[in-house]
Amino acid sequence: MPNPTAAILIIGDEILTGRTREGNAHFLAGELARAGITLRQIRVIPDDHATIVACVRELSAGHDQLFTSGGIGPTHDDITADAVAEAFGRTIGVRDDAREILARHYAARGVEFTEARMRMARIPEGAALIDNPVSAAPGFSVGNCHVMAGVPNIFQAMVMGLLPRLQGGAPLISRNWQLMIAEAAVADQLRALAEAHPGVSFGSYPFVNDAGQYGTNLVARGTDLAAVEAAHAALRATFPEGA
Amino acid sequence: MPNPTAAILIIGDEILTGRTREGNAHFLAGELARAGITLRQIRVIPDDHATIVACVRELSAGHDQLFTSGGIGPTHDDITADAVAEAFGRTIGVRDDAREILARHYAARGVEFTEARMRMARIPEGAALIDNPVSAAPGFSVGNCHVMAGVPNIFQAMVMGLLPRLQGGAPLISRNWQLMIAEAAVADQLRALAEAHPGVSFGSYPFVNDAGQYGTNLVARGTDLAAVEAAHAALRATFPEGA
Repeated sequence: MPNPTAAILIIGDEILTGRTREGNAHFLAGELARAGITLRQIRVIPDDHATIVACVRELSAGHDQLFTSGGIGPTHDDITADAVAEAFGRTIGVRDDAREILARHYAARGVEFTEARMRMARIPEGAALIDNPVSAAPGFSVGNCHVMAGVPNIFQAMVMGLLPRLQGGAPLISRNWQLMIAEAAVADQLRALAEAHPGVSFGSYPFVNDAGQYGTNLVARGTDLAAVEAAHAALRATFPEGA
Repeated sequence: MPNPTAAILIIGDEILTGRTREGNAHFLAGELARAGITLRQIRVIPDDHATIVACVRELSAGHDQLFTSGGIGPTHDDITADAVAEAFGRTIGVRDDAREILARHYAARGVEFTEARMRMARIPEGAALIDNPVSAAPGFSVGNCHVMAGVPNIFQAMVMGLLPRLQGGAPLISRNWQLMIAEAAVADQLRALAEAHPGVSFGSYPFVNDAGQYGTNLVARGTDLAAVEAAHAALRATFPEGA
């Protein structure tokens, strides 16, 4: 059976205007590879209701799982929850269980539970809450769409709580072989290796090190450990000067 | 006249498998904001021919400019040029001007001009070359689609050569106001400010500093300098405790 597929939808003007360098997708990409869920697309879009609705519909229909990041805070530009509810044809309102979680959190800290904070208890009907061990305000799952915060430490904590609940597959195994020669110098042999190992994906990634020297990382990837190890052995044998 | 719009298409399995944290989109996002080109989407997709063709068609039709990063090197997994040619219905082959650029570069360095390196001279018919002052192998523009390397220093050099040739608009101006209070505590006043300044976009971005203290960055953005400055003045007056 092939691995389940996934997409990540990052919501936020701050990424598209160049203010913030996005990192949540990179974190989740690594976790999905380990969980055996094949990430097929990452998309970044603005804080725009119609755009969010359309992208949630498209990406949730086209993948087994959709993960979103951003736009579920207390301010006027946090519009993700309403857009996801609309995308799935659900109503949305303050839900008792989410309100209780926030009320306990603020009471324990002597913080007033304002109307603005109450916004974070607005959850689409029928959604399952995603635990937020950092700042209480929960994420939620509607259908196959998992809605999480954009603040990196909160996003990461939500992912670590959510992923064990999802159907995974065979973990992606990657083996690296680094050469201090130019990418073009390995192209022919690498193509032959790729053809000889059809169940393994070969990538080549040129780099420049701190000393200004050019090199190439060769990567063999796949979900069959024996096949990836055989490919890695072939890389080592073909390019014995690597490390 | 509204600013031109753009999308960025990042091509590479290494991003989706979590191996590489993508940074080219962040760099280009900042440059586009300065050039007055409104970035509406960033999308990351795998090294898959049909996916690249479909996404290039969709995103080039839906935006004034499309920028791609990745997949134009010498190895078997570099399939972007062929896919872009197909997306625009162009033939592709080794082009004399691109071959000359590479031939001179390798001759000057005493490097053999191999078949693998010749792959980097394959350019769609009618494309304009994008200069690569780092390692010679050019990018190219077909229609409104600008195809550039994935290696960050090469990507950045290509962008800096390309952008002055494109139609820009009014630069995006951003002003920041940082508060050491929680986001929820500013929500009501921020919403009122957003309503009072309709030509300006207000964002709020919570953070935790190294000392573990929570704070919020408030950002006013727009293309009208006077309007953004007025919004920033209103932020300072409303939250005098900020900096």
